[in-house]
Amino acid sequence: MSYTLIKDLYAHAESFAGQSITVSGWVRSIRDSKSLGFLVLHDGTCFATLQIVYEEGTISNFQEISRLPVGSAVIVTGEVVLTPNAKQPFELRAASIDIEGSSTPDYPLQKKRHSFEYLRTIAHLRPRSNTFQAVFRVRSLAAYAIHQFFQDRGFVYVHTPLITGSDCEGAGEMFQVTTQNLAHYPLTDHGALDYSQDFFGKPANLTVSGQLSAETYAAAFRNVYTFGPTFRAENSNTPRHAAEFWMIEPEISFADLQDDMQLAEDMLKYVIRYLMDRAADELDFFNSFVDKTLLQRLTHIVNSDFARCTYTDAIEHLKKADRPFEYKPEWGCDLQTEHERYLTEVVFGRPVFVTDYPKDIKAFYMRMNEDTRTVAAMDLLVAGVGELIGGSQREERLDMLLARMEELKLDPENYWWYLDLRRYGTNRHAGFGLGFERLIMYVTGMANIRDVLPFPRTVNNLDF
Amino acid sequence: MSYTLIKDLYAHAESFAGQSITVSGWVRSIRDSKSLGFLVLHDGTCFATLQIVYEEGTISNFQEISRLPVGSAVIVTGEVVLTPNAKQPFELRAASIDIEGSSTPDYPLQKKRHSFEYLRTIAHLRPRSNTFQAVFRVRSLAAYAIHQFFQDRGFVYVHTPLITGSDCEGAGEMFQVTTQNLAHYPLTDHGALDYSQDFFGKPANLTVSGQLSAETYAAAFRNVYTFGPTFRAENSNTPRHAAEFWMIEPEISFADLQDDMQLAEDMLKYVIRYLMDRAADELDFFNSFVDKTLLQRLTHIVNSDFARCTYTDAIEHLKKADRPFEYKPEWGCDLQTEHERYLTEVVFGRPVFVTDYPKDIKAFYMRMNEDTRTVAAMDLLVAGVGELIGGSQREERLDMLLARMEELKLDPENYWWYLDLRRYGTNRHAGFGLGFERLIMYVTGMANIRDVLPFPRTVNNLDF
Repeated sequence: MSYTLIKDLYAHAESFAGQSITVSGWVRSIRDSKSLGFLVLHDGTCFATLQIVYEEGTISNFQEISRLPVGSAVIVTGEVVLTPNAKQPFELRAASIDIEGSSTPDYPLQKKRHSFEYLRTIAHLRPRSNTFQAVFRVRSLAAYAIHQFFQDRGFVYVHTPLITGSDCEGAGEMFQVTTQNLAHYPLTDHGALDYSQDFFGKPANLTVSGQLSAETYAAAFRNVYTFGPTFRAENSNTPRHAAEFWMIEPEISFADLQDDMQLAEDMLKYVIRYLMDRAADELDFFNSFVDKTLLQRLTHIVNSDFARCTYTDAIEHLKKADRPFEYKPEWGCDLQTEHERYLTEVVFGRPVFVTDYPKDIKAFYMRMNEDTRTVAAMDLLVAGVGELIGGSQREERLDMLLARMEELKLDPENYWWYLDLRRYGTNRHAGFGLGFERLIMYVTGMANIRDVLPFPRTVNNLDF
Repeated sequence: MSYTLIKDLYAHAESFAGQSITVSGWVRSIRDSKSLGFLVLHDGTCFATLQIVYEEGTISNFQEISRLPVGSAVIVTGEVVLTPNAKQPFELRAASIDIEGSSTPDYPLQKKRHSFEYLRTIAHLRPRSNTFQAVFRVRSLAAYAIHQFFQDRGFVYVHTPLITGSDCEGAGEMFQVTTQNLAHYPLTDHGALDYSQDFFGKPANLTVSGQLSAETYAAAFRNVYTFGPTFRAENSNTPRHAAEFWMIEPEISFADLQDDMQLAEDMLKYVIRYLMDRAADELDFFNSFVDKTLLQRLTHIVNSDFARCTYTDAIEHLKKADRPFEYKPEWGCDLQTEHERYLTEVVFGRPVFVTDYPKDIKAFYMRMNEDTRTVAAMDLLVAGVGELIGGSQREERLDMLLARMEELKLDPENYWWYLDLRRYGTNRHAGFGLGFERLIMYVTGMANIRDVLPFPRTVNNLDF
């Protein structure tokens, strides 16, 4: 049997007027007065709900429906009636209401305001609430907008591996993966770990970035992107850290840092415009209940030309700032979120790319500038958040890359395939990484990463 | 600087005629005779290459270019000349050829036929070969087609977690995830593993399926899908098994097994049609060099109404077959690939859904049929492969589900949140799983899963 969707009712209300239709969904609320009842139905297809009016005598189970707990699943047949003067543009006058599955009076998601903390304890039910309906529909649409952006531009989507034998940046705590008995991991005669008995015959970790693998595909398909999970075993219990999160990492060939920044700016504007078109109700909701500056901020972004500023100039701006910072800005030190926000919010008043960072605070694969002190890196800073995107032009010169790896004591043998790209037809290329959850936090105003991941994984938290 | 893409040259050759353009890419081959040379350039944007004609006297570095090793990166400026009588519809007459990055004479990917086994040892370079250009462009397009199919139908994309505290089906070897020292995993006073000191404070594994999590979102968004990596630590060294692979798992509410099969059929046809439209060159290549029946097979699929047959009837068909099977067909036993292929290739001559399998060979969450012997499961069988998709209507009745879990000795406490879905507004729902690599093998004719994953992870293989 096929059901009319509430989404379609809102899109084409007039064409349904006077029609008999059948809808299915879950009860958000029920109230009745004597012989007349009102049931608010949500069917999962859009943010809006459908008001259903039911009458004793018309439906056969008036008493039963009036006692139905919130959260129950029902199937309703009735006539669509336009109500141009009411709050809702139409309602459904029920001819029958069938109970598909009853809920219970102790349903944990009653019609009232719950704290986000409480809702995390019922992560399996919270997507039924307004806030999380909005968050996770926006998350889905944003993911698709990203795919659409890159695919329309001919980028090839690459599934870089999750289990890895290498440590991308020589940085970041990693999760180990094993099939061996943890109580008795096999040892060699010398008491060392005997990885030869493990599944892969060598140490295995969960990846922290797909970039190096993506570069190999950019050298074949020109423009590629990854969009997949990454992992960090950082013991950070903050609103911004999760052990498992999703990243987007495009990589473009015959391209430099300027091309890279343009791509990042275009992508971000594309995603925001897509959400403004397709998730207007959800963004309105966030703007009303989560972050009253959201729509203004997003509108400002899509209408701004992003600023660009070198790290060295940024430090000068910060030193001249007439406000105290917790961390004193100093050339050679990483920018703190307070610095980043000051730059984008106060100095530039719009998103800004800070470029050409000191080599010592950036990864080995970033392209050395002519000054030999800075590298062709860029971070995109946005209001309220700080760094949203980080990228760089990659070091395509074999000798320069090897020299840098030696400085950092990275063993070239572990990177033989990465270095091969510089041996066989090397070319200028660049890329960036976007933490998907940080983007979702930015476009929804949600302040905790636990509230934009369906089932967040953090230190000491592996529920569900 | 911006380059003309070879893809755009093929799309609008006439409009480029006589124009001076600049292209960039990698040398596929070079041959010269006296003062005239031909360079075949691939720029990663499409399967086809561009022939570049260069002349001594016109370009300044004729000798150098003629000695350039295959795989080198070059930037070429020249005039587009239509060549309607030649093999290529147009060529580029070079005014200059700049070397972006030279390759070497020992470049591992010379212009000759290499075995797939050899190419796996250079997985970082193989996407530059014709076969893997085709495979991984098809993979990218198929991934996007799947997103497009579901998003156009209003499905919400859910990122179900990869690291999990539960074992979805109580089946399948899993990878463990830990941050502890493997040589000295902390033990309790009683000598048991002290998980409290590990990152999540409890045992953690890599997921084998996102289905149960996806069901929680289907109870909020009606129709959802996952598309992400899954893991199996099976010690199977076969052409069909990988330790890390990607799965698509849609889940639909207020829907039964019939709806589920229709969705699977529609999705598969959609993806194949999308590839026929967008990857015609690649499919032609596979049809010529990998599987001569490919196009015929794919065309047949999109034009067939898929057949449907119960497992019980399927067993009857197999028993009546006038061919010997290695495994004797017997009611209650799982179908082997030989059985599956016989059914779809010989009995039905088109894709067939086999439905209503014995409960004992299927998972606990599948809906019990009225006969109490079979469950509302379906497998889609296709020629050459056997099972491509497996799905079921889910058991939405709490009492039936609990009874089944008790039979299988599954502890309801481990599934409290899954059971909650049956307590609070339960409803008919269904879903299926599609192994993405199996789909890619099917639509390309590639016979080994190692050749459709960018960097495959299998037993004792964690290279790159």
